[in-house]
Amino acid sequence: MTARILDGNALAQRLQIELAEKAAQFTAQFGHPPKLSAVLASDDPASAQYVRMKRRDCKKVGIISETFEMDASSTQEQVEETIASLNDDPRVHGILVQLPLPPQIDEERALQLVALPKDVDGFHPINIGKLAMKGREPSFAPATPSGCMELLKEAGVNLSGANAVVLGRSNIVGLPMAMMLVKANATVTICHSRTQDLTAQLRRADVVIAAIGRPNFVQADWLNEKAVVIDVGTNRIDDPSDKRGYRWVGDVDFEAAVKVVRAISKVPGGVGPMTRTMLLVNTIRAAWRQAENA
Amino acid sequence: MTARILDGNALAQRLQIELAEKAAQFTAQFGHPPKLSAVLASDDPASAQYVRMKRRDCKKVGIISETFEMDASSTQEQVEETIASLNDDPRVHGILVQLPLPPQIDEERALQLVALPKDVDGFHPINIGKLAMKGREPSFAPATPSGCMELLKEAGVNLSGANAVVLGRSNIVGLPMAMMLVKANATVTICHSRTQDLTAQLRRADVVIAAIGRPNFVQADWLNEKAVVIDVGTNRIDDPSDKRGYRWVGDVDFEAAVKVVRAISKVPGGVGPMTRTMLLVNTIRAAWRQAENA
Repeated sequence: MTARILDGNALAQRLQIELAEKAAQFTAQFGHPPKLSAVLASDDPASAQYVRMKRRDCKKVGIISETFEMDASSTQEQVEETIASLNDDPRVHGILVQLPLPPQIDEERALQLVALPKDVDGFHPINIGKLAMKGREPSFAPATPSGCMELLKEAGVNLSGANAVVLGRSNIVGLPMAMMLVKANATVTICHSRTQDLTAQLRRADVVIAAIGRPNFVQADWLNEKAVVIDVGTNRIDDPSDKRGYRWVGDVDFEAAVKVVRAISKVPGGVGPMTRTMLLVNTIRAAWRQAENA
Repeated sequence: MTARILDGNALAQRLQIELAEKAAQFTAQFGHPPKLSAVLASDDPASAQYVRMKRRDCKKVGIISETFEMDASSTQEQVEETIASLNDDPRVHGILVQLPLPPQIDEERALQLVALPKDVDGFHPINIGKLAMKGREPSFAPATPSGCMELLKEAGVNLSGANAVVLGRSNIVGLPMAMMLVKANATVTICHSRTQDLTAQLRRADVVIAAIGRPNFVQADWLNEKAVVIDVGTNRIDDPSDKRGYRWVGDVDFEAAVKVVRAISKVPGGVGPMTRTMLLVNTIRAAWRQAENA
């Protein structure tokens, strides 16, 4: 038997059709489109590339976007002034502070300045706190775990009472993912580099979220036949047979796992496009909420 | 073999001797003692009793305390004004908003008003968010899970890589406990009412935190001989043989478990006194920090 393959590209495209409609409605009703502003204060080419991709995504669904390209030697004050001016601008609905920030910038202080209704990345500590707390809802949840939740829904998983293993405990994936799964009534185990019996933990898992950034790390025989596997890893490995000389692989040995498990997401084309789409979902939601509360 | 019994009363008393010294030093240096202010806006006798106990604890170590007894029909504005005035009072180092608040009060909004340096309960969503996030530290962690961490330290548990099972996911115990254990490098499983294979989860556990409020629920044969068990439950059960007609029991069947596990906390006399002591720890820490940053 072969697993069902969870196609993030296809799901993202379906969602983007709905998003384009909502953006068009917004623009028609309020006379200006939803807007996302990105703060890029780094000369890291990967960060610049991420921001360019996010802007291209925005354009596809009718969100306008702008990038504040700040010098990598910008001061804390300059970054904070930029964020404050975006908070104050009623035409800006979402603010994206591209991480990592340069070392002279206190990231915690900067992220905490983003106005909650515009925190479309969901990285403000108040939003993380509310994501964790029972009976509270953050204004926005981070894009990657939100994208994973959509893929789990697509897979038809009943999360209530399911054993979910989250591999990784980063602030942007593992931790918020674990909190979202607890809220969805899963029994959640958070595993990481210090975990001693990872294979035993994974063998019991109905849901596996792999987010540790180790290429092909999770072996097929660590997984069971009922498992739904979401692979967040995006690791570049050398591949002379590829014309670029490399290819992208996930944290799970896909070729072997696909023969064992019930469903698995692809890398690339799984979590990646869903993460990008969830940022658009959050931005359009932010625009509607702000316009309706104005 | 019999388990080591983790005596919260004894540990609390040892900590309180240190706390009394720190409070006396503070008073000598700054001319006024550390101060905790409680907001009690409920006519629930249990809440009033908790506040009285907390004030008695304060007195023992040299913290002065006061209670703002507000009418149970107080408005949101009145509660918020009380909190704001305590935020502004430089002689007040810790603010305790006794929960639950009456139904007409938006608890989330009220707790969010407490100034972070005075949030000795650690319930502000920013503090919960920072407790969850890697690389961030809350100004204060909630008292009950902090008390459990002290009991685990007392038991000599090496948490790194340990399998910890947290039973319960409340905002004041289960969730922050899970986050603190992840930060201590444990592999953490969060179990709750929807968990389907609780006995299997518990059998693998090196550390068990029971916090679900079900008397004697956890059976001895669900636990293994290496397990260190912290029982957060405080459940009143009828007992005609007791002169009061009732007694307090935990969430774990203590009499049977004590013959099986490596270490276990008592109920009463385990987590309870440690919770009360950690509030004092937080208050004295708050006082020193505020005085030194003034």
